[in-house]
Amino acid sequence: MSSIRLGIVGLGRLGKIHAMNIAKHIPGATLTAACSIVEEELEFATNKLGVEETYLTYEEMVNSPNLDAVCIVSPSGFHTEQIRLAMEKGLHVFCEKPIGLEIADIEKTIEIIESHPDQVFQLGFMRRYDESYQYAKEMVDSGELGELTVIRCYGIDPSSGLESFVKFAGASNSGGLFADMSIHDIDLVRWFSNKEVKRVWAIGKNAAYPELDEVNELETGAAMMQLEDKTIAILVAGRNAVHGYHVETELIGTKGMLRIAAVPEKNLVSVFNEHGVVRPTSQHFPERFQEAFMNEMKEFISCIKEKRQPEVSAFDGLQGTKVAIALQQSIDTNQIVELHNQEVSYGF
Amino acid sequence: MSSIRLGIVGLGRLGKIHAMNIAKHIPGATLTAACSIVEEELEFATNKLGVEETYLTYEEMVNSPNLDAVCIVSPSGFHTEQIRLAMEKGLHVFCEKPIGLEIADIEKTIEIIESHPDQVFQLGFMRRYDESYQYAKEMVDSGELGELTVIRCYGIDPSSGLESFVKFAGASNSGGLFADMSIHDIDLVRWFSNKEVKRVWAIGKNAAYPELDEVNELETGAAMMQLEDKTIAILVAGRNAVHGYHVETELIGTKGMLRIAAVPEKNLVSVFNEHGVVRPTSQHFPERFQEAFMNEMKEFISCIKEKRQPEVSAFDGLQGTKVAIALQQSIDTNQIVELHNQEVSYGF
Amino acid sequence: MSSIRLGIVGLGRLGKIHAMNIAKHIPGATLTAACSIVEEELEFATNKLGVEETYLTYEEMVNSPNLDAVCIVSPSGFHTEQIRLAMEKGLHVFCEKPIGLEIADIEKTIEIIESHPDQVFQLGFMRRYDESYQYAKEMVDSGELGELTVIRCYGIDPSSGLESFVKFAGASNSGGLFADMSIHDIDLVRWFSNKEVKRVWAIGKNAAYPELDEVNELETGAAMMQLEDKTIAILVAGRNAVHGYHVETELIGTKGMLRIAAVPEKNLVSVFNEHGVVRPTSQHFPERFQEAFMNEMKEFISCIKEKRQPEVSAFDGLQGTKVAIALQQSIDTNQIVELHNQEVSYGF
Amino acid sequence: MSSIRLGIVGLGRLGKIHAMNIAKHIPGATLTAACSIVEEELEFATNKLGVEETYLTYEEMVNSPNLDAVCIVSPSGFHTEQIRLAMEKGLHVFCEKPIGLEIADIEKTIEIIESHPDQVFQLGFMRRYDESYQYAKEMVDSGELGELTVIRCYGIDPSSGLESFVKFAGASNSGGLFADMSIHDIDLVRWFSNKEVKRVWAIGKNAAYPELDEVNELETGAAMMQLEDKTIAILVAGRNAVHGYHVETELIGTKGMLRIAAVPEKNLVSVFNEHGVVRPTSQHFPERFQEAFMNEMKEFISCIKEKRQPEVSAFDGLQGTKVAIALQQSIDTNQIVELHNQEVSYGF
Repeated sequence: MSSIRLGIVGLGRLGKIHAMNIAKHIPGATLTAACSIVEEELEFATNKLGVEETYLTYEEMVNSPNLDAVCIVSPSGFHTEQIRLAMEKGLHVFCEKPIGLEIADIEKTIEIIESHPDQVFQLGFMRRYDESYQYAKEMVDSGELGELTVIRCYGIDPSSGLESFVKFAGASNSGGLFADMSIHDIDLVRWFSNKEVKRVWAIGKNAAYPELDEVNELETGAAMMQLEDKTIAILVAGRNAVHGYHVETELIGTKGMLRIAAVPEKNLVSVFNEHGVVRPTSQHFPERFQEAFMNEMKEFISCIKEKRQPEVSAFDGLQGTKVAIALQQSIDTNQIVELHNQEVSYGF
Repeated sequence: MSSIRLGIVGLGRLGKIHAMNIAKHIPGATLTAACSIVEEELEFATNKLGVEETYLTYEEMVNSPNLDAVCIVSPSGFHTEQIRLAMEKGLHVFCEKPIGLEIADIEKTIEIIESHPDQVFQLGFMRRYDESYQYAKEMVDSGELGELTVIRCYGIDPSSGLESFVKFAGASNSGGLFADMSIHDIDLVRWFSNKEVKRVWAIGKNAAYPELDEVNELETGAAMMQLEDKTIAILVAGRNAVHGYHVETELIGTKGMLRIAAVPEKNLVSVFNEHGVVRPTSQHFPERFQEAFMNEMKEFISCIKEKRQPEVSAFDGLQGTKVAIALQQSIDTNQIVELHNQEVSYGF
Repeated sequence: MSSIRLGIVGLGRLGKIHAMNIAKHIPGATLTAACSIVEEELEFATNKLGVEETYLTYEEMVNSPNLDAVCIVSPSGFHTEQIRLAMEKGLHVFCEKPIGLEIADIEKTIEIIESHPDQVFQLGFMRRYDESYQYAKEMVDSGELGELTVIRCYGIDPSSGLESFVKFAGASNSGGLFADMSIHDIDLVRWFSNKEVKRVWAIGKNAAYPELDEVNELETGAAMMQLEDKTIAILVAGRNAVHGYHVETELIGTKGMLRIAAVPEKNLVSVFNEHGVVRPTSQHFPERFQEAFMNEMKEFISCIKEKRQPEVSAFDGLQGTKVAIALQQSIDTNQIVELHNQEVSYGF
Repeated sequence: MSSIRLGIVGLGRLGKIHAMNIAKHIPGATLTAACSIVEEELEFATNKLGVEETYLTYEEMVNSPNLDAVCIVSPSGFHTEQIRLAMEKGLHVFCEKPIGLEIADIEKTIEIIESHPDQVFQLGFMRRYDESYQYAKEMVDSGELGELTVIRCYGIDPSSGLESFVKFAGASNSGGLFADMSIHDIDLVRWFSNKEVKRVWAIGKNAAYPELDEVNELETGAAMMQLEDKTIAILVAGRNAVHGYHVETELIGTKGMLRIAAVPEKNLVSVFNEHGVVRPTSQHFPERFQEAFMNEMKEFISCIKEKRQPEVSAFDGLQGTKVAIALQQSIDTNQIVELHNQEVSYGF
């Protein structure tokens, strides 16, 4: 079978990761086109990645006759429209999280996706493709942990980025701490439990930079979520992990518990020095999830070749966004927010 | 100075620990009297610990002219009255947690305690005297972690005791999961943060023994608590830790975080066998907090000798019980419960 | 630049790993030819890896006009001759360890390699390309550990393979425990210290299968080695690690120490179950060194493209084999064996 | 039974630990007398520990009619004579390691000890009374590790003391690195294996302070030892552990392996800070072996009361010293030294 030809939109930090993976590391895939409004990014694509077609607008790119699929890594606000456009052009779509920012808009997009069942759609919940998460998932599914009672997810960005976040927090809208940081954790909760979130309470605190209160942003937040079967989910999201990039997940079941990356180990080295015994830690998401980004793209390509849909669906994106919105509402009101999951009727 | 003479009431599992410590391991203390309604326990005290006076009623024991202090390890419902009686007899009092079960009753007891300022009163929050907790407290107080934003406390009993708990859950009243299991964690939250709890939401799930629902008990529960300065506290309480006795505390601050007993290590041994690399774990509280129980009793004796009050006050007991009651209310209603901390005016 | 075309000889367990990496994971490389005397292996190469040319003899393969390089993964006894043949045909050579079994033969081969300075020669000491080892090497070279005083290397195969080893130990010759298992560790000692080995003493013990004594094989052995600058090296080699594949390296320096894979962690998961807190472990070398095998091959391809020699030279292979031979002599005599490193005059 | 009355000789760093334990922490023991040539030490004993009798000479102390036993913590060169004197006076003897410095002298002392079988003699190999070591010993004895093949012992002092050691190394004689540091490790090897040491090779390196070469002292050394049943023992001894006090023991058996204090954890706290994830470490032997020192003294008192001999015998001391002497000979000659264990005929 010939190589799958992809066009990518968005060549920022994460876009570059996907572009490099497609161009260099994914057997059976070719990065044929790139779209960006930043000239340097297109030059990078041409010169470093051997991309043949570059575009300043997404509409032009999806009209290229040389593409089988698109990889959407543009700002979140563009996702739904770009998904719909690609679907209607007959292209397979890989889209970074979140699928969208507004429920109605996502629902409309899902309708379009559903009406093209022969085209692959995959959402970028790459953690599901991390080998440690997969190992944990297999343990859960095989019953080794018994029935889950508590799922705890930490997603804390390194403090190295906090100062700059504070500086620009007023100007740009992150969507709020939970939408920005916890969308992957919400997906993990749903993935591990196979249950929907029912009630949430979220709170936060600004200690390092109290001025974040003024722009309605948070240094650190936490949420407790009750799932439909009473399973307990706990989220901690933050922007101030001094030791690096702290993404940790814990599963407590009736027969045992496990933790993924309780120590976010950078590698297999332990250093014994004047501080004690030190495990160096992962410093950012490209380092921690390098393999997972590659694995999810391999899965996307495999799905196209094998004419099947991936595990991560658009509905997962919809549900994740709903919970993120509920968490933000809870932060805003300091009250419990209840989710009405009638959308299950979509029948995915 | 001559040895401090103590009488103990209650010689159950924890009572025996205190009795043995006083009789054998605490320099400057003598276990002079013991009170129990169980004949075998009194024989144990006489024969194994060399106790000279044994009593079937507490009233008789506190009337002995040979006592300087009492150690109360009776069932929780008796604590307040026994405290008051000892105080009025001029005795120093060490009392196990909780100080009491009803707010008004505790408040009345605190008045009595306050009216005897020359007598030492100490509550059995022994974790404050565990060396790992003290190490952590020093780091917090010295500012090494910056300002705290999140405190997470796990208190999960070993599953070895769960079956028997289920069997007797209908007959005896544990006070509810949080009152039973989290009272120490609530104290830790207040101790590390120096703040009071303001709002709480607590939920739970019975998975291993759904029949616990019928007797209003929980296998596993979690609570999120907002402190008066917005610091976030997360509690997980449970009765089903397959690996042993899991008491873990995490402190997240603006300059770093720490965990106490993230792996509840039994000792310094790592075993490399067919399961992987295994750290054996503590199996129950007497094993985990052996030193802390001794340290708190040494502190009680020192306070008597040095005519000062210990760090753990009756007010700490009052506040802990208030939060535990609020958590139970939240479990019962599945709603946020707000605490009104006007009692700060007690001025302790 | 066009893709580098490789032919591989040997498609056993390790041969397959290299073949798959070259065929699917190394940008800029193509697996053009494969040579094996096993028909199924050639079919695998053709059908699964898209290899165009298959050969039953190495001589035929190196005569193909379509090759730029060879990858030698044949039995150790064939290495030197195959290296020489490829070199003389103008091909770049990647050869698995050991470079050879006899000193004179290796020296002759090195002469041939040296007489073709424009052809890349790389030996398969892949651990140097493992990211944990590279992290450690950078710490050593930057002086963070001070001057090294002790290097300890463990290389212990999983016990899952021991029974079958015992069964066939009489029939096939492993070359001895140290030649078979420690050749990578010897290279690590030389790599980290930049020093040669001077004196060695090696001993061993058969406990699980005493019958190994009869065929002069060892379950477990250890060696102490004095380097030319008095740095101490300790090797433990074995075939009976119940917990999996235990390759661990320790560096003790005047300013600190470090350990690589002290716990041979399989992934980032910790499991809390009835055994305690368990870290699952790597089970075999393909799992542990998956990335390193890929990285070394990438480096080989880069060296060809960039017309430079890799860090791992034929001389490293010679020195490693010399030490392995000395260790075996020491095992045989239970005496210290001294190495005379006059070969340094090769001037690599 | 009345309290056992002890006299202590030597009130240096370790002497003070024993004195405080006896005076304050060991039920059933009383520190009645103290002997030292340092006036301040005797004042300390009187004022802080309530010792009733103080002596400037050991001879006077053992003539006191008020003693049941002595605790010898004097410089090593005095041990044998002080043991003999106490034995002849009818006193039980606890003696710090080493039992003596010269074989003939120790043998003579053992004869004296043997001729007083009703008096307890215990040597201060306190590691055997550490709970982690006891846990490991039980695993070995129960067969959980199968048959032992390798025992690795590290004993490395914190570098905080190295500079001062270097300063005074010329003036005072440490007895050599292995006699000074490895005597406990040698005992552990014998204890775990129940075998004697047969052949040893020891080497060392001075890197931080090359001037130590001039006074025949070592910063770091290592030894490999072959036991009578071919079990392999590896020792690393040093004076320059930057992270603290590193005493680690590893046991490799046919069914599994274990490590004691592979990370010399100070407590149960993990700190997540700018260095990574840090385990604080034990800083010196009084911190690491605080409990073990108490446990061994409790055992000594119990042996006296229960009229039995402790597990650690004078013969253990003799054998340990023999191995230490052999290791020093090996260091001096850079050759293998063979031990002739005919002394087994002592029949202990």
